[in-house]
Amino acid sequence: MPSLTLADLQAHLGGTIRGNADIPLHGAASLEQAGAGQLGYLLNRKFIEQARASSASALIVPASLESSLSDTLPQSCLAVDNPHAGFARALALLYPESLPLPGIHPAAAVAADCVIDATAHVGPGCVVEKGARIGARSVIGPNCVIGAGVQLGEDCRLHAQVTVQQGCVIGKRVVLHPGCVIGSDGFGLAWEGGKNGGNWLKVPQVGRAILGDDVEVGANTSIDRGALDDTVIEDGVKLDNLIQIAHNCRIGRHTAIAACVGIAGSTRIGAYCQIGGAAMIIGHLEIADRVTISAGTFVAKDIKEAGTYTSVQPLMRHADWLRNASHLRHLDDLARRIKSLEKQLEQS
Amino acid sequence: MPSLTLADLQAHLGGTIRGNADIPLHGAASLEQAGAGQLGYLLNRKFIEQARASSASALIVPASLESSLSDTLPQSCLAVDNPHAGFARALALLYPESLPLPGIHPAAAVAADCVIDATAHVGPGCVVEKGARIGARSVIGPNCVIGAGVQLGEDCRLHAQVTVQQGCVIGKRVVLHPGCVIGSDGFGLAWEGGKNGGNWLKVPQVGRAILGDDVEVGANTSIDRGALDDTVIEDGVKLDNLIQIAHNCRIGRHTAIAACVGIAGSTRIGAYCQIGGAAMIIGHLEIADRVTISAGTFVAKDIKEAGTYTSVQPLMRHADWLRNASHLRHLDDLARRIKSLEKQLEQS
Amino acid sequence: MPSLTLADLQAHLGGTIRGNADIPLHGAASLEQAGAGQLGYLLNRKFIEQARASSASALIVPASLESSLSDTLPQSCLAVDNPHAGFARALALLYPESLPLPGIHPAAAVAADCVIDATAHVGPGCVVEKGARIGARSVIGPNCVIGAGVQLGEDCRLHAQVTVQQGCVIGKRVVLHPGCVIGSDGFGLAWEGGKNGGNWLKVPQVGRAILGDDVEVGANTSIDRGALDDTVIEDGVKLDNLIQIAHNCRIGRHTAIAACVGIAGSTRIGAYCQIGGAAMIIGHLEIADRVTISAGTFVAKDIKEAGTYTSVQPLMRHADWLRNASHLRHLDDLARRIKSLEKQLEQS
Repeated sequence: MPSLTLADLQAHLGGTIRGNADIPLHGAASLEQAGAGQLGYLLNRKFIEQARASSASALIVPASLESSLSDTLPQSCLAVDNPHAGFARALALLYPESLPLPGIHPAAAVAADCVIDATAHVGPGCVVEKGARIGARSVIGPNCVIGAGVQLGEDCRLHAQVTVQQGCVIGKRVVLHPGCVIGSDGFGLAWEGGKNGGNWLKVPQVGRAILGDDVEVGANTSIDRGALDDTVIEDGVKLDNLIQIAHNCRIGRHTAIAACVGIAGSTRIGAYCQIGGAAMIIGHLEIADRVTISAGTFVAKDIKEAGTYTSVQPLMRHADWLRNASHLRHLDDLARRIKSLEKQLEQS
Repeated sequence: MPSLTLADLQAHLGGTIRGNADIPLHGAASLEQAGAGQLGYLLNRKFIEQARASSASALIVPASLESSLSDTLPQSCLAVDNPHAGFARALALLYPESLPLPGIHPAAAVAADCVIDATAHVGPGCVVEKGARIGARSVIGPNCVIGAGVQLGEDCRLHAQVTVQQGCVIGKRVVLHPGCVIGSDGFGLAWEGGKNGGNWLKVPQVGRAILGDDVEVGANTSIDRGALDDTVIEDGVKLDNLIQIAHNCRIGRHTAIAACVGIAGSTRIGAYCQIGGAAMIIGHLEIADRVTISAGTFVAKDIKEAGTYTSVQPLMRHADWLRNASHLRHLDDLARRIKSLEKQLEQS
Repeated sequence: MPSLTLADLQAHLGGTIRGNADIPLHGAASLEQAGAGQLGYLLNRKFIEQARASSASALIVPASLESSLSDTLPQSCLAVDNPHAGFARALALLYPESLPLPGIHPAAAVAADCVIDATAHVGPGCVVEKGARIGARSVIGPNCVIGAGVQLGEDCRLHAQVTVQQGCVIGKRVVLHPGCVIGSDGFGLAWEGGKNGGNWLKVPQVGRAILGDDVEVGANTSIDRGALDDTVIEDGVKLDNLIQIAHNCRIGRHTAIAACVGIAGSTRIGAYCQIGGAAMIIGHLEIADRVTISAGTFVAKDIKEAGTYTSVQPLMRHADWLRNASHLRHLDDLARRIKSLEKQLEQS
């Protein structure tokens, strides 16, 4: 871990320093756990008491609060417009990623006609199939499989055990976490009836999965290739772990999707959306730009306007749930009885 | 990509041609995206306008619509009874899978006593443990792990990074997608109370996972081995991505299960069922044949009759949800008050 | 499979034998499927008829029922206080796990400065990065990736294709099933607005994932590393398949979590909890000790008291659901109309 001063951080982040610009920093931690030599950050006014009590040596704070903070906080501070982003950049400086050296590990199996940039790294146990291209400074972690004809851009970071299936196209600065699968076959089945009841016939999935620049894909997430046309993940999309993106989906730029979400085939999600964990979205829908979907929500129809949408059951003690939930089977009857009461009262 | 004529397709699919039987086809696409030299398909009457506007050179169409289509569509057409299945077969001809050559890659680690058919392929990075058997023409993709004593039938296709645990049995023509795990331990725990609160004791999982013929398993799906008896996936079952099948489940033949579904232990699903994405089914249930379960549905009791079953909350704007959902905690009270009002009115 | 007598089992499990102590046993099965030479078990009184009809040669039975069973069951019996745990121990004796020999497989890529105990096994295709430590008698299955600086305790069992990311710490007797990922990056993003709408900036995830002793993690489950502080899985926690544990969660000791559960960031789950399959828990919550959460339940608020909690929709035939669910959008209106009726009747 390098040791940097608050002034070093300022050189990269901008902002203004209050206190000791030369204070040495060798790491970062949460306000509660930070100690001497560690950097913390104050996201907003809500955390001022925690910040005051923190043993962090320095803090990144919001420029908007700077004047009111000068007498409040004992730490040296770097005030920036966006403290969350500033802290992210400070972390990248304090904890530089240790990247492996360029080159192909001798325990990788790389087809003869691949085009692997001399500055790229291919780790041990990797398999790179025929015709694949890997861009400058990209790092392929251990035991990844890069299918035939895959195109991978510059500065990508594939962690361990990633699979990219044949023909997929991946942009620049894409991060793929362990176990994720890009370009698996979509769930395309044609029913063939028959004397014995019939069976499912596999529909070959001949589209690709296309990932734009700056996409991040979480651990064990799967993104299916298109059935005919392509599945498209636009620039800047961030996907958490254990997400399913089915064939022919399109996810608009800078949309962020939390873990355990499933999106069925051919659904199009707009740009700048935020989809909460475990939300489930059926197929062939259109979701507008700037839509927020609450965690756990089930979406079965188009959403045409920006806004926040929800469909979850509130939590109850089990005994209360038993008493209440049975009525869900009779809501129509309850509504009818209310209407009938209203009529009777009107007539009386 | 081979170039085929419509007549070539007819030779494999049957059906009747209207228009130019010799039109050369070098690929396929959706009606919207197809261009010259590409094949499209018309699923049913609903898409006739799209078909008419399509630049596809030829279409597969339903025989039932043929007479009414002859003047409507500008493309050469192959009319077949089941256009979805016909199109699937045409895709398989237009995009033949490029299979690797038979043989064991030098970068695979294969135990001495395995029986691997001479026509099978074992890819780089594969580990095949002692006593495993791999049938004729099966292809084991890169970095797969085949456990001790596994039996794998003919013409199977294992994509990259698949794990099949010890002793499991897999039929013919089975397709396993990247990252799926067959035969992982079930979640078997025995509670042992003690002075300090107790702990869970692992129950060894000594059953197997048995997959029939023509089964397909999606990316990152897990199928647990049986606790004592076996977990059984019958012939023709199709499983999408990120599905969990717990120990001792039995899934009936030709049932199709969409992504993100979880099925808890010892549940038996009938034949010809369709289970929508993200449905969750608790353990020790019996689901009859030909049951359809809607996406997102939670199943906590047996389903004894064919039909469609659902249990999802409708989507609302978050503000509407806030206003409405709180009443779910008081449905019993609302129902009681309606009954009381009815009594009062009756007596008045 | 070894052959043991009921007396052999008694030597390990304690308890008292009724019938033939020398009966040879070569395996175990469920009451329905057991045959000669096989051991079954009787969990409680409910299964007595099944036990009586079983062809098992011997049974493990509850000591509490022993007196009432003596004339009822035809099999030789070993009566123990906790038959489920006793049966688990018997299975471990009847089906001893066949562990590979100590040593590093020649097809593993192990960094020079790793400290791997001489009694540990590292399988083919494994990659162990610089500075990692692997404890005595631990077994690393095929194609695992152990990141730089990982510390892995004694007697661990990593199945195939497991990934443990850099710096994570894993206790003793930990079992990791195929495809699980320990220490993947959390979903940490800072929004940076801009002229063109802005973009997400990755927040480096510099905490670790710490797993205590006797933890078990299911297939394709992911446990994220901490953002700043660590993600902590305490001793004895059991996680099933396809679970997501987000950054900075803490799961209390001996809590068991069934498959397909998602727990969002910074949530703390108490000790001795049981979380049903597909439950979803949002971030920054506190769940008390000894809480049971029903399968399929969505948790969006703290749970401060032990007990069972639920929030699921009951299953309906789809036609019934269509009729009833629409009223969920108007519950507030229904409640208001009931109140209005009550007022009118009061005044009349």
